[in-house]
Parts: sequence; structure tokens; C-alpha cells
Amino acid sequence: MDARKQDKGQGAAKMTMAKSVCVVGSVAIDSVDTPTGSASNVLGGACSYFSVAASFFAPVNLVGVVGRDFPESSRRFLGDCGINLEGLTEADGETFRWHGRYHENMNMRDTLDLRLNVFDKFVPTLPESYRGSEFVFLATIQPSLQAHVLSQLEAPTYVGADTIEHWIREAPAELAQLLSQVDLFTINDTEAELLAGERNVVKAARKILQMGPRHLIVKRGEYGALLFSSDEVFAVPAFPLEEVVDPTGAGDTFAGGLFGSLAADGEVTARSIRRAIAYGTVVASFTVEDFGLSRLTTLTRDEIDARLRQFIAITDFQS
Amino acid sequence: MDARKQDKGQGAAKMTMAKSVCVVGSVAIDSVDTPTGSASNVLGGACSYFSVAASFFAPVNLVGVVGRDFPESSRRFLGDCGINLEGLTEADGETFRWHGRYHENMNMRDTLDLRLNVFDKFVPTLPESYRGSEFVFLATIQPSLQAHVLSQLEAPTYVGADTIEHWIREAPAELAQLLSQVDLFTINDTEAELLAGERNVVKAARKILQMGPRHLIVKRGEYGALLFSSDEVFAVPAFPLEEVVDPTGAGDTFAGGLFGSLAADGEVTARSIRRAIAYGTVVASFTVEDFGLSRLTTLTRDEIDARLRQFIAITDFQS
Repeated sequence: MDARKQDKGQGAAKMTMAKSVCVVGSVAIDSVDTPTGSASNVLGGACSYFSVAASFFAPVNLVGVVGRDFPESSRRFLGDCGINLEGLTEADGETFRWHGRYHENMNMRDTLDLRLNVFDKFVPTLPESYRGSEFVFLATIQPSLQAHVLSQLEAPTYVGADTIEHWIREAPAELAQLLSQVDLFTINDTEAELLAGERNVVKAARKILQMGPRHLIVKRGEYGALLFSSDEVFAVPAFPLEEVVDPTGAGDTFAGGLFGSLAADGEVTARSIRRAIAYGTVVASFTVEDFGLSRLTTLTRDEIDARLRQFIAITDFQS
Repeated sequence: MDARKQDKGQGAAKMTMAKSVCVVGSVAIDSVDTPTGSASNVLGGACSYFSVAASFFAPVNLVGVVGRDFPESSRRFLGDCGINLEGLTEADGETFRWHGRYHENMNMRDTLDLRLNVFDKFVPTLPESYRGSEFVFLATIQPSLQAHVLSQLEAPTYVGADTIEHWIREAPAELAQLLSQVDLFTINDTEAELLAGERNVVKAARKILQMGPRHLIVKRGEYGALLFSSDEVFAVPAFPLEEVVDPTGAGDTFAGGLFGSLAADGEVTARSIRRAIAYGTVVASFTVEDFGLSRLTTLTRDEIDARLRQFIAITDFQS
């Protein structure tokens, strides 16, 4: 924790320039089994992963709900990351719990147990102080609730949203409505195929862009990511890793690093979004090196920047 | 053909500087079915695909065998590409024939019919004029025959070899022997996993490098490629395509573009191999845009260079 705190201290001056990121989504208590180990009752949920990743770059305002059982240590950890928890409400009942098991092929997993608990009745309400947020990420929740968050914002600069297969199948109309209101949509490749009804990823992306978002990022796990807009495509590989301990949270920390970097730049340009995707890739690569959020608890901004330089070196073929 | 001829003419001056590429492997007559169409009795085989791709960059010396039924039009096409056919022997019998069908997911295919015919007894013998070749590619044949080719070369600068799952399973000792003698080994990701007995691609690559080759390229189809050496990793995405008509020959034209580019540069450096991989990626992206070698019959070097610039633009996140 020392390294992280020291790093945060050093970064404080720079961070006063950064715009803040507001994120809405799940905060959970996870248990994970992989072919080589397991972790029980650790801090999880898209919103937690996203927030911690984004906190290396910019101030973060979190909106979520936990139960009475939410560990004080997890709350303290998020606070120590500098994350604003004014929007983290505590409700009567238990925190969202998820238990998953990864296959030998770590791209596949089974959900062994899922209890939404207090998350089931979650209706996100932004504290007054969050309503001027400029960079906003709507992690996976029911699309109509994601839209409900949007209605509480004054004039966001850039809004991103994520979803999962469940909402593509169960709430297509609400999702379509949401897509017409966001700037960036993130989705994985099988979800893109499902949503567009199109197997070719480039064609699928063109169809999804027609639904409204200015930017679409297709996440391909260990194969990297693709960014699409009306006039460009950007392709980036993943950071090649010798050891993937636990893939949980890779996509959420990718999005967190991405939004943190955009907020730190303060504007979304063709250049800043590519750089942000590279930062997201790098932060995600650290996440999967240990269970849950463990690796990110000791990670420093210097380590992130060093790996970004390494990432540039391993992908460069021009110089 | 006009565009290609004109292009070859323009490139001739530059090409006199290029070293030649020698390639040994299958020349076949293919039939291919895809979900959207089919092609019957078209020129195929790893050696054909490789040669045509490499011919955009450097002089090519081909070693292969065909039967009495090999179409004069195919021979003329290869000759028109400037490929030296002194090493293409004609044997009594029929040419190697393959008939494959791609699934809805074009990453998967079934072989409906395969007749090795004259290729079954193929023992590659290099014409005297080929023995000084500096850049040599051993496309997939029995590993002991690949080694037999090596024994006929005087002092090759850079030797690459490819293989398939069949030889990893059926001739592991011969393959290990070959690996200790080549500079570059190319393999796809499932083959790398099988050969190394290791699921993680980075770990698998480390193990394969220990078997001898200086460079290892892991081909990942629509996800791009990874280059490994003892001291570096290079990761590159594929060129994103809206339409993949026929994936046949993508890996062989990738290797052909790669070796052609290396031979044109005349040396293998950290820089030249990355550039060669980018060229290979680009040539492969053209190949899959039509059935068999159709797209490459009209392709020009200018189109290749234009798409390379496009590829640089869609992967750049530094500028």
C-alpha cells in the first residue's frame, strides 16, 4: 500500500488538472476458482474494478450499493484509492455475491452462484455533487437504469456504457434507446455478433454504430481490442502475458484505465482515445496477474507508465 | 493481369537489389466451399500461395511437384509472376488435390477430400542454380524432407519452416531435429499449444524457442500474429476486413510476404522482421478477399504499399 500511496501523492499535482470520472455499476463480493487456485469473498463488481483502475489517472466518483455485510476493509481500500464514496449507499440486506469457476481455457467460465441481493433493487441516484460530471461510465446494469443515470447528469462531455449478453436478449428495446444516447459503447466480440446479428466483426461494428454511439470498442480478451467510429478503425493487440491468474475484471479495468486516461487528458480526440485504449490494455494486463483486485492494490502509476512504454515497444513496426 | 505486369516492370529495378527466396512445398489443385460460395479446381498448395505472395518483393525459386494434369494456365500464371519454375517437376500421375469446406465460422473447416497423388512420393531436389539461395522457406511437408532440403543448401542466411498438427503428432522426433536447424518457425496457436504442451501462448513460445529456432511466429488468424525471440516479443493485430471470402492460403501468403520483404531488405534485423510481418499481414489480408489466388492475380505492389500505410494508421497509438 505504501508504494501506491506515495504514488498517489506524487500524482496529486497532475491530477488537479484531470476532470473527474463518474461510474455507476455493481459492487460485489466475489469468489473465484481457477485451474490453479481460488479466492473467496474478495471485493469485486464492475464498478469496483473500474473505479480502482481509473483512480490511477483521475478523481473518481462511484455510484453503487452494498449491504450491511460489506467489509469495512473494502470500503477503506476504495477510499484509500482516492475514490469518492459519497454515492456508495448501504441498503438493508446482503451485498451482491458472485461465485465463478474458470475452465482450463481461461476464456470460458461458469457462474456457480449469483445472488443479486441489494443490487436487485438498485436504482442509482447521483449525489448532487456528481451531477456536473463530464466523463461518465455506465457499467452493466439494466439499460433503462443506465438511461436513468443519464437523465440525472447536467451536461456530460463523454458517456460510455457496457452491457452483457443477458440485456441484449432480455431488454433489446431499452438497450437500443440507451445506445442512441451514449458516446462510447463497449462490448465483447460474441456480444457484438449477437447484437448485430452479424458474424464479421467489422460489419457488426458498422451496424452497432448506426444505433447511435460515436465510438464502439469491441473487446477480444487475450487478442486485444478494436475501436470503430464512422471514419476510422483502430486495432490493438493485448499485452502478451506469461501468467494469467484470474481474468475477472479485465474488461472493467480496461474501461477504467481508458476513462481515467480520457479524463486526465480532459478531451476526447482521435489521439487521446487511442492512448486511452493503450492505457486500458496495460491496466487490464496487471489486473489478471493476480486474483481479484490484489495486483492493483500494490500497483503504481510508474509501473503503469513503464508497461505502456513496453507495450509501445512490442507493437511498434514503424521505427 | 495488366496492372500486375506493369507493377512488376516498375519494381524490376528495385528487385535487382533483392536476394532471392527459395520455397519448397505443395502445389495443388483445390476445391473450396464456403458459406457464401465455392471455387473448383483452382491453383492451390502452400508453395503456390507463398511464391505468388513473395514475388511482389523478390525473385522466387520454387521447388515442388505436379502431375500430368497440372493446367498449363496455372504454370503460365506462376511464370508470369516472375517465379522461377526450374524446380517444379512433373511426375507421372495426378497433382495433389484438396477439397475443403469452411463452416459458418470461417476459422473452422473440414477436409472433404484429400488425394496426395504425386505429392505422396515427393522428394525435393534443388536444381543446382537454387543451392546458393539465402532466404529459404520450407512449407509443410514431412519434417525429415524439410531437413533433406536444408542439406542441399550451401550457406543459407535465413531458413524458415512451417508445419501442421499432423507432423507434430506423427513425427515429433524429426520435427525436433528440424527445429534445431531453422532460424524461423511458424505455427498457429493451437499447434503451438500442442507442440509445447502448454496453454499460455507466451510460455508455449518460450518452450518452442528452446527447441532451437531464433524466431518463432505464432499465427492467430483474424487476431493477428506474435513474434518471439530470446529477447523480444512483437504483437500485431490482423488487418480488419469487412469481407472474408475464402481464408485458404492466408498463412502461406503471410509467410510469402514476410520472406519476400526480408529478402528485399537483404538482412534480418529486429526492424526488418517486424516490417516483414506487417507486409505478410497485408498480403494475407488481400488473399482472403477472394477465392484461392484470385485477388493476387490483379494485386499490385502499389496496392500492397497503400494498405501497409493504412495498416500503420489503424495500429498507431503513439503519434
